[in-house]
Amino acid sequence: MKIIDLIEKKKKGKTHTKEEINYLVNSFVDGVVVDSQMSAWLMAVTFNGLTELETAYLTEALAYSGKVIDFEELKDSIVDKHSTGGVGDKVTITLIPLLAAAGIPIAKISDRGIGHAAGTVDKLESIPGFNSVLSIDSIISIVKEHNAVIASQDENLAPADKKLQALRNLTTTTDNISLIASSILSKKIASGASNIVLDVKYGSGAFMKTPEEAVSLSKMMVNIGKILNKKILAIVTSMDEPLGRAVGNSIEVIESMEFLKGNIKSGDLAELTFSIAKIILMNLGLYDDKKEAEVFLSSLIDSGKAIDKCKELISVQGGNPDVVDNYDKFELPEFKIECESKKSGYVQKINAFNIAKASKILGASRENSNDKIDCSVGIFLNKKSGEYVNKGEILYTIYSNDEDKTRVAQKVCDEAFLINDNKPIHNNLIYKIIKTEDEEEDV
Amino acid sequence: MKIIDLIEKKKKGKTHTKEEINYLVNSFVDGVVVDSQMSAWLMAVTFNGLTELETAYLTEALAYSGKVIDFEELKDSIVDKHSTGGVGDKVTITLIPLLAAAGIPIAKISDRGIGHAAGTVDKLESIPGFNSVLSIDSIISIVKEHNAVIASQDENLAPADKKLQALRNLTTTTDNISLIASSILSKKIASGASNIVLDVKYGSGAFMKTPEEAVSLSKMMVNIGKILNKKILAIVTSMDEPLGRAVGNSIEVIESMEFLKGNIKSGDLAELTFSIAKIILMNLGLYDDKKEAEVFLSSLIDSGKAIDKCKELISVQGGNPDVVDNYDKFELPEFKIECESKKSGYVQKINAFNIAKASKILGASRENSNDKIDCSVGIFLNKKSGEYVNKGEILYTIYSNDEDKTRVAQKVCDEAFLINDNKPIHNNLIYKIIKTEDEEEDV
Repeated sequence: MKIIDLIEKKKKGKTHTKEEINYLVNSFVDGVVVDSQMSAWLMAVTFNGLTELETAYLTEALAYSGKVIDFEELKDSIVDKHSTGGVGDKVTITLIPLLAAAGIPIAKISDRGIGHAAGTVDKLESIPGFNSVLSIDSIISIVKEHNAVIASQDENLAPADKKLQALRNLTTTTDNISLIASSILSKKIASGASNIVLDVKYGSGAFMKTPEEAVSLSKMMVNIGKILNKKILAIVTSMDEPLGRAVGNSIEVIESMEFLKGNIKSGDLAELTFSIAKIILMNLGLYDDKKEAEVFLSSLIDSGKAIDKCKELISVQGGNPDVVDNYDKFELPEFKIECESKKSGYVQKINAFNIAKASKILGASRENSNDKIDCSVGIFLNKKSGEYVNKGEILYTIYSNDEDKTRVAQKVCDEAFLINDNKPIHNNLIYKIIKTEDEEEDV
Repeated sequence: MKIIDLIEKKKKGKTHTKEEINYLVNSFVDGVVVDSQMSAWLMAVTFNGLTELETAYLTEALAYSGKVIDFEELKDSIVDKHSTGGVGDKVTITLIPLLAAAGIPIAKISDRGIGHAAGTVDKLESIPGFNSVLSIDSIISIVKEHNAVIASQDENLAPADKKLQALRNLTTTTDNISLIASSILSKKIASGASNIVLDVKYGSGAFMKTPEEAVSLSKMMVNIGKILNKKILAIVTSMDEPLGRAVGNSIEVIESMEFLKGNIKSGDLAELTFSIAKIILMNLGLYDDKKEAEVFLSSLIDSGKAIDKCKELISVQGGNPDVVDNYDKFELPEFKIECESKKSGYVQKINAFNIAKASKILGASRENSNDKIDCSVGIFLNKKSGEYVNKGEILYTIYSNDEDKTRVAQKVCDEAFLINDNKPIHNNLIYKIIKTEDEEEDV
């Protein structure tokens, strides 16, 4: 097999065999296929696409390019949840203790954030002592004993994906859905998950800008799951405004703890966490009835089991569990600036991209993979869409360690809010649930 | 300017500015734009193309990436002739002494051959002592004193093109006409030529397979000439069968010398050499009348001036001029195998690609740039299309140094000939002359 012929084949819009995809990925890892050749192939894919079968082969080849976690007796029941990324998206932090308290084994291997959104691992590391860098053996044993783990991406998992993603960033071949799908799923498969719930986001704060794009990506991933014999289900959700009220690191963890304590019962964060949890319970065959599943989940929160599980998981991974009862144990920012609304009216929308930008300006997320992030800073939205604000009332709060950055961030945040007299129509957070190519559920 | 944005721009089918093309080429030479990024851009160009203006900018950027030869007082009159490459194409070797004898300054900077066709420089190096590796200063002084030079590509001329071409070979982005045109013309411009005649070939033995492709490439190059203020004219010629009768190295030089001595007055080699020479004479305004130009050129051959110029040029570049009068001074092959025709009839066609393949099997051309070639081997076509051959009469002759290779080459050559009873229709060698986009001349 010659790489030249494979590039030519894709350039001409022909379809690769499984053997060809395997050769391509393995030779790329070995350095036989050089970066320039892989880049040419990636650009040809951007123009001519990959079929679902080719994408499945690519996913598998990437997944098996390194170690694949084997959870042994838990193998078939292990759950994973993945979000394509959004502003203020802390659902992993709310969901995992809840599911673990429900007795469902869940192993979450997370990336660190690059660009506007901070990663789950970054957020959790705002807990003093919390360690997410775990060996594969530790990951397995923690899940077996405590039902859950949140670890950072091990370099032995899907190394070909890591290498390919770096090249895609360098060559602006990031937007093809087959390449996106195979990158996401290869990591999930390498992480040992067999029941995968994908939260595919669209909107100003997401990579996919329209619901149609998000649905296409979802269908492709669900179909690849079928080909590769993994249970995959996708929830298409809007990301036009930040999820919940906190955007940052420690402040997002605090908001998640508030939810787990039962102090946040309504709003998008609670709604999405409950929806995904219910879907997982029902998909695993534990409940047939949505209502019953919801009652069970509420009981885990009201009884304190969810927040106790949260404490337990923090403790197991070396974190100080006292932060749960005393938020002052988090590293605190120097400034807390309460920003008032300049007019009265209903909040129509809050541009997620702007808020993410402001949060990045404050230092809550990184531009490059080696940049350090500031865990204590961020933005809290005192008012969200649909809520009424009086002129002079607090609209949002900035947590910061730098006065200059605060000024710039405040300008960006002010522009993010659209306020006027009309009460806005409430849009559904969940757009569709995709179970198979033909089975869509409107919510 | 960011390379990522330029790749994205071409991916989306947008048009680059001159500044963008310059940035791309210069940063590529400097290593700021890495191979993987350039490869992605090349593949995007393969899909979305370059406009004529973008191609002109690219040509200029490649040409000026290194030194550009300045022939000073000869600057405006210097002629160059370039062939896109064909089997048995020795027109440079016949044409240059002829034009030099006519008093026209011509500087030919040639590539070495890779793949099926041997390069002009390789062929001339079959002359004992002939040196084509000349400094730019030597090139200029030889042309000033002797009217002509044939030198191998200096590494200081259009280095960006060399780097880009290597990448194109690696990534199968070789077939876009803008990339082909800019590569050819950048080298011509760097070589200091201001009157360029391009012999653009199509057919089984050429890179362009159809006359339409060759016409498109020709028009693009002629138009780029206009944009860059260079006189460019293209002749579209067929390359379905080898040009002349000899395919190899020394045997092609010998055939060229036979032409210059006046021993070959008809056939495709004589026809093409005279046609190109006439076009150049008329283009330079030296003759208005085709017939008169032809009489003048014939007089140069009949008077011995052409072959004397050939001797002089060989001598100036360190070659032994005695080879002209005694072909035994060339390195001789061990075997000379005269292959008989297995049937009687008219030769209908001789597949150029097969003859090139056989010649390569014998060792006359190289696979990789570092391979050594055997100057003494090759194939002589005793019969060409339109000629009648009796069963048992010699059809072609193999010159070889290896019995095993001879057997394989003979099999390939046998398959190249199509012989049957009908006298074939003679096809014109020259398909069209392209002077401007709208000015085509049928011949």
